[in-house]
Amino acid sequence: MDQALYQNRIEKVKAYMAKEGIDAFLLSPCANLKYVSNYGAMVDERLLVLVISQDAEPFFIANRLYKPHIDETPVSEVAYWDDSISGYDLLKAETEKRKIKTDTLAVDGSLPSLILFSIQEKFPQSKFVLGSKGITELRLIKDAEERKNLEKTSELADLSLKQTIEKGGWIGKTEKEFLNELINNMTKNGMISDGSGIAAVGENAASPHHTTGQTKIREGAALLVDFGATYNGYFSDMTRTFYFGKPSDKFVEIYNTVLKANLKAEREFQIGMLAKDLDKIARDVITEAGYGDYFIHRLGHGIGMDIHEAPGVGIGQETPLVPGMAFSVEPGIYLEGDLGVRIEDIVLVTEEGLKVLNHFPKELIIIEE
Amino acid sequence: MDQALYQNRIEKVKAYMAKEGIDAFLLSPCANLKYVSNYGAMVDERLLVLVISQDAEPFFIANRLYKPHIDETPVSEVAYWDDSISGYDLLKAETEKRKIKTDTLAVDGSLPSLILFSIQEKFPQSKFVLGSKGITELRLIKDAEERKNLEKTSELADLSLKQTIEKGGWIGKTEKEFLNELINNMTKNGMISDGSGIAAVGENAASPHHTTGQTKIREGAALLVDFGATYNGYFSDMTRTFYFGKPSDKFVEIYNTVLKANLKAEREFQIGMLAKDLDKIARDVITEAGYGDYFIHRLGHGIGMDIHEAPGVGIGQETPLVPGMAFSVEPGIYLEGDLGVRIEDIVLVTEEGLKVLNHFPKELIIIEE
Repeated sequence: MDQALYQNRIEKVKAYMAKEGIDAFLLSPCANLKYVSNYGAMVDERLLVLVISQDAEPFFIANRLYKPHIDETPVSEVAYWDDSISGYDLLKAETEKRKIKTDTLAVDGSLPSLILFSIQEKFPQSKFVLGSKGITELRLIKDAEERKNLEKTSELADLSLKQTIEKGGWIGKTEKEFLNELINNMTKNGMISDGSGIAAVGENAASPHHTTGQTKIREGAALLVDFGATYNGYFSDMTRTFYFGKPSDKFVEIYNTVLKANLKAEREFQIGMLAKDLDKIARDVITEAGYGDYFIHRLGHGIGMDIHEAPGVGIGQETPLVPGMAFSVEPGIYLEGDLGVRIEDIVLVTEEGLKVLNHFPKELIIIEE
Repeated sequence: MDQALYQNRIEKVKAYMAKEGIDAFLLSPCANLKYVSNYGAMVDERLLVLVISQDAEPFFIANRLYKPHIDETPVSEVAYWDDSISGYDLLKAETEKRKIKTDTLAVDGSLPSLILFSIQEKFPQSKFVLGSKGITELRLIKDAEERKNLEKTSELADLSLKQTIEKGGWIGKTEKEFLNELINNMTKNGMISDGSGIAAVGENAASPHHTTGQTKIREGAALLVDFGATYNGYFSDMTRTFYFGKPSDKFVEIYNTVLKANLKAEREFQIGMLAKDLDKIARDVITEAGYGDYFIHRLGHGIGMDIHEAPGVGIGQETPLVPGMAFSVEPGIYLEGDLGVRIEDIVLVTEEGLKVLNHFPKELIIIEE
């Protein structure tokens, strides 16, 4: 564990808190907590927070079940609770003991309301605000180690999809069977999957977030595959759309429009351009082809320790895209009751320009079985 | 979809709201929403709520990406937002349009603070409370269909563990490899896994929530396996502890103490007894054997559409255990730096008494390879 790395990140969070007038940040389990403390255990209904303040060293409030995970963090001060004492009472007592100011308390945006309300009961005079931004802004710019993890996880995603497609015999199998095989391959390749992912046949692909089910892969229909998993805690996320049998001219036209939008955005990217302007490059291609009303989501989302994080890359988003940022480029066209096509890569902005991290082919792959 | 079933559940929620003085319940994606509306899409950062009130028919506020999932619910009124309009503004406008009272608004305990704070901004005069209890109390008592799903999911968990153990050749393989094989088997058997689960070798098992890693399974050490997944949306959850090679007398003594605690609690269960009294039956066995300080968690937790739900079965928990309830019975002993043993079944209270849903053997299985 790199003590200095975490120390440095905590100092930056404290600087953000000072600027925002936050007295203490009660940081609960999520990627933000992992980022500043290496704490990575499961999330459950038990109160667990890292208390970061200007008045005292950072300390954890944790159920003693989680001691082994606390031991893996650089934080040496911990107050443990168990069934004999309420974690909320302990939080109150420990902040008082350390004379920590609690006029303005920050929590993470992911904190469940159940826990928030219980904390608020113990600090009825405090103002509660979101503190997540102080960490998500740091996470926007990936360091060398993080970039390596992002490259590797996309490389493994490419490999896993290749293995799954090459296995063959997919006609007659269900969406779920395809997704399971893909997840098995990712797992064998050293990634950790949370079981999520989309395999969508034919008209099911018209729903960008289709729930993978029992529809069978068939001749004369497309298969859209959107999936990701982590390597060393960093996410991959990619989409490809295949066709089984002979596609109609209309399908090919739509596919090539999406492909053109994807390639043009990646090719014309410039360091420092605004997120909305990159979105516009892809969107204009689709609009000019007459499908603007059917590209119903943003071009992309940031990625890292969370599968969706900053920066958003869509209409109205003003973030300049600078070295260290990683995000998806995923134009799509969706015709309800008919078809859906999406092509998604993860890209990383480096000092030399845009690096596309997925190398699985993007031209329409026609599968004849 | 059984319209009457969901209608009936919504009516019960409205009765609860009337009793508690809740004007409207803004129910976000979670098992509670699935239970009352069959809405089961992925959770993301986009505002999605089912608004249940006394003043109007239930309606959804949703991003239009989720139309296909809304179409699978019995709810016919929906207001969709997209990138051109804020979901929060739409929520405000739609409640006003329907003249819904908003003095007291309920949210689910799982609602992320980020979304809660954004809702609160639009309703600055409202009092916000937790409404989850009105649904979790309904979910406490499983109906015939739910009981069938719980029986089936535990049966498939038993089968998946059997297949994994019988595969053999585990010495020298890592915890992660064992867990992956188990997850693969569950997936093949028709379950949906979120990738979670614990495989813990030797001293790692002393951490009840050990993070499964690269430690190798070895001769002269135990392997604790705690895992679950869903079938038809209902969770299994079971733990078994195996030994590779010849266990010490101390290990056997501890194992048999845990086993006795598990069996005694299951055998002496009586319909209507309090949760804390069932906990005590198991805890007394472990305390009398001298290990009371090392059984550091409650005896069990409720299970259903969530892996942890009501009722809690532990010290101080006064819930009478009545027909329709399902929960785990999972005593354990944990010696830091040395070993951990846990044996966990899911049980269902029926009108005839306790039904143990896991049938995988519980006597110590010694594996010689």
